Amino acid sequence: MAKPRFTVSELATLLGAESVASDHLIEGIGTLQSASSVELAFLHSGRYQQQLAASQAGAVLVRSEHRDEVATIALVVADPYIAYAQATALFRDQPAADRAMVSPLACVSESAVLGENVTIGPHAVIGDQSVIAAGVIIGANTVIGDDCVIGENTHLAANVTLYNQVSMGSGCVIHSGAVIGADGFGFANKQGEWLKIYQLGGVQLGNRVEVGANTTIDRGALDDTVVGNGVILDNQIQVAHNVKIGDNTAIAACTAIAGSTQIGKNCTIAGACAIAGHLTIADGTHVTGMTMISKSILRAGAFSSGTVMEPHQQWKRNAVRFRHLDELSRRVKSLEQFVKQHTEGQPE
Amino acid sequence: MAKPRFTVSELATLLGAESVASDHLIEGIGTLQSASSVELAFLHSGRYQQQLAASQAGAVLVRSEHRDEVATIALVVADPYIAYAQATALFRDQPAADRAMVSPLACVSESAVLGENVTIGPHAVIGDQSVIAAGVIIGANTVIGDDCVIGENTHLAANVTLYNQVSMGSGCVIHSGAVIGADGFGFANKQGEWLKIYQLGGVQLGNRVEVGANTTIDRGALDDTVVGNGVILDNQIQVAHNVKIGDNTAIAACTAIAGSTQIGKNCTIAGACAIAGHLTIADGTHVTGMTMISKSILRAGAFSSGTVMEPHQQWKRNAVRFRHLDELSRRVKSLEQFVKQHTEGQPE
Amino acid sequence: MAKPRFTVSELATLLGAESVASDHLIEGIGTLQSASSVELAFLHSGRYQQQLAASQAGAVLVRSEHRDEVATIALVVADPYIAYAQATALFRDQPAADRAMVSPLACVSESAVLGENVTIGPHAVIGDQSVIAAGVIIGANTVIGDDCVIGENTHLAANVTLYNQVSMGSGCVIHSGAVIGADGFGFANKQGEWLKIYQLGGVQLGNRVEVGANTTIDRGALDDTVVGNGVILDNQIQVAHNVKIGDNTAIAACTAIAGSTQIGKNCTIAGACAIAGHLTIADGTHVTGMTMISKSILRAGAFSSGTVMEPHQQWKRNAVRFRHLDELSRRVKSLEQFVKQHTEGQPE
Repeated sequence: MAKPRFTVSELATLLGAESVASDHLIEGIGTLQSASSVELAFLHSGRYQQQLAASQAGAVLVRSEHRDEVATIALVVADPYIAYAQATALFRDQPAADRAMVSPLACVSESAVLGENVTIGPHAVIGDQSVIAAGVIIGANTVIGDDCVIGENTHLAANVTLYNQVSMGSGCVIHSGAVIGADGFGFANKQGEWLKIYQLGGVQLGNRVEVGANTTIDRGALDDTVVGNGVILDNQIQVAHNVKIGDNTAIAACTAIAGSTQIGKNCTIAGACAIAGHLTIADGTHVTGMTMISKSILRAGAFSSGTVMEPHQQWKRNAVRFRHLDELSRRVKSLEQFVKQHTEGQPE
Repeated sequence: MAKPRFTVSELATLLGAESVASDHLIEGIGTLQSASSVELAFLHSGRYQQQLAASQAGAVLVRSEHRDEVATIALVVADPYIAYAQATALFRDQPAADRAMVSPLACVSESAVLGENVTIGPHAVIGDQSVIAAGVIIGANTVIGDDCVIGENTHLAANVTLYNQVSMGSGCVIHSGAVIGADGFGFANKQGEWLKIYQLGGVQLGNRVEVGANTTIDRGALDDTVVGNGVILDNQIQVAHNVKIGDNTAIAACTAIAGSTQIGKNCTIAGACAIAGHLTIADGTHVTGMTMISKSILRAGAFSSGTVMEPHQQWKRNAVRFRHLDELSRRVKSLEQFVKQHTEGQPE
Repeated sequence: MAKPRFTVSELATLLGAESVASDHLIEGIGTLQSASSVELAFLHSGRYQQQLAASQAGAVLVRSEHRDEVATIALVVADPYIAYAQATALFRDQPAADRAMVSPLACVSESAVLGENVTIGPHAVIGDQSVIAAGVIIGANTVIGDDCVIGENTHLAANVTLYNQVSMGSGCVIHSGAVIGADGFGFANKQGEWLKIYQLGGVQLGNRVEVGANTTIDRGALDDTVVGNGVILDNQIQVAHNVKIGDNTAIAACTAIAGSTQIGKNCTIAGACAIAGHLTIADGTHVTGMTMISKSILRAGAFSSGTVMEPHQQWKRNAVRFRHLDELSRRVKSLEQFVKQHTEGQPE
């Protein structure tokens, strides 16, 4: 791959900045502190403002009020963070579309349907009747089951697994180790033994869904598990059978969502949370890290659980007391009643 | 694969229902709400009873007391949920036994021993001296190490990894991304550096064990890690070296079990729990979600830890107070002593 | 592979024990309880001292004070646990260096550079310009991206995934299902939709790093994610973009570390912890299991959070009270003020 390069003038146009006349070449992006003279940097938070003057960056994305503080070339935009995100798309590694090819080492079913410019890596496997749209990239050793549908320009990294009947829209990114469509955890207890309930539903992902490394999304028991458009899932998330996640919801790493829970749109769920099954979470809900959600959230807001870190010996003493918190509350109530009885009718 | 179809009469026989004379064809299973006239539904909980009258399902599994509420055909069984589980086995995708084949793209050691009707997907790898019993299905890109033993009719999905010396019984299901037999986390600290303790034990899984997607079961340090018959493990569970899990225990997603802990039979451990090492958990123990288990449980019961979700600002105030809970308890004790001193010998 | 065997005399020399004249052959290692007469055992803790007399072990690693309690042959060393760790390296399965080979079924880029005695398993994929040093072992179906660097004698198990621009030093062990270099979870919110920030940094691992099964280490946003020398990571750990982990730090399974956090040297972080982003954790910090770390730790110590397990019904009552802990504290304060007012100026 040829490394992408742009003049500062070109970047101004591409990123919607005020126009700048400069042939200075930019070959990458760095932080204000680390960027060299051939790199672009950006200022998105007051916290880093003091680094502006000393930055070696060839050009810096700033809001207009910081224009004069840039030592080199200022690229003035309305939102430097958005412009930075757009710039990363210009400088990323990207296989050239004209090099799209199906590896002769891939194993593609004769009944699979492949669109134009599809790239399939070595040792990938594509199952029967699966439909792979134009521009899709499938990494090495990725396995796609039967009857799957992959939308345009979606990118599956290496070592991804899709079971049968998984569909996803266009522009998705599925990272390595992700497993989509494994059986939901459904069993009936028959006299002490677990009788498997085969999971007959599938999985549907919308457009522009990101699925992090080693994240698992189980197939539905009867109906499908559904992930909406624009949902972003970090690494090692567990999405159980029949969960529904609304559009543009973001979930951070290691959060687990139990079966049949419905999460609304535009929620942000931090990492390492556990969400019980059969709940409803309202649109726009925010949950902080490591929260246990065991009840539905019917109105948006910010929610938390747990206790905060403290020195171990101190924590131990407090944790022991927690086990007597109900009793402590009753004792306080008794004291209050005592005080009430002994002061009634008495002068203060 | 031909899609399975049965008449209602055939289903009655197959599922042990009261016999019904009906040639109506059933081609799948749905919920009471979603099932069409060619699908079977079931009523297992009073909660859904009101959906019975309006259900379009071609036939409905019910207990005898609901027989007359079914708008179409009632299939009367003792336990509709068990009958539903049995029905899913009839309607699942299942590769035909007569199509069993070892892919020419698989890499099978010459010293491996394969039973009859074994199916091995493309790019799977089977190591030296491994023994694969009759009817086993091994998915694409799955890697099985040396000296492994896989029992009859066990199904390993795609992209599973078994290290050397992993054995499992018959009728197991191992989902994609599962890693069985990786090194336990054993290191000796030698003057600040970690000296690796090579893990010389193996892993033994019983019969009918289910291992969820991306679950990891480490090999033992010297003896084996052991998972009993009928144990069901959901996705992303961590089973450390030398853990032993008793028969028919069920563990939900994202629970972590540290080294050498012994979990009894017939336990149910909910998701996102953390179980410390070297503990003993009694048969029949039930643990709720996100519980930290740091002591042995010697008598069965239900156990929990943590705090429950609340609005973030309220939680913050309470969490700050938790750090002073021991002090608060002492202050309450002082108040009680004060009250006691000031009321002794006084008339109430 | 020939099974390794040593005489007790040879073992004494290899493990730095006091010399012993014995041709007795040892073929493996066991616990004091399980070891047979051809196995080595060890006593490292007083807890197992009572098993010494009855042990059938062919030889036992002990400190000098226990020399006379060994029924068979004592191998006297300064630290039996360190000697045991060293012994495991002698008895492990190890592919012979003279059998190193690149499988003809592997797919190695023509521009990749391979050192001497490199072993590459079937269906492994090595990307463009990647440099694989001498003695490296790469398991079956492992995928290594472009521009990666793997140091001498590093061992990647089967089904590992390395994205582009991942480098690691010598003597590392990377377990199956590990994903190194997937995109960090970086998105800018543009009017409710998530705009992907392509992750342009890489990942650097030092020497002798161990990465557990299904652990994920994301690439940096602009700079690299960095894991120091001798760091040991257990299974299913999440290391987000731009995290830095200091030398010889040990992290147990299922811990999640959010973006840009810097963990010091020689820390021990137990399992199932969640560490928020942009924090600094001091060298030598110890964190107990399932702790939520939401603030920097500037001085070493032991830290904890959460509550301890208790019977479910009791826990429920206490957890309800936690939601009123702030109010309870205020009520105790009121009682104290009342008492103070009513006792001032009064005789005790």
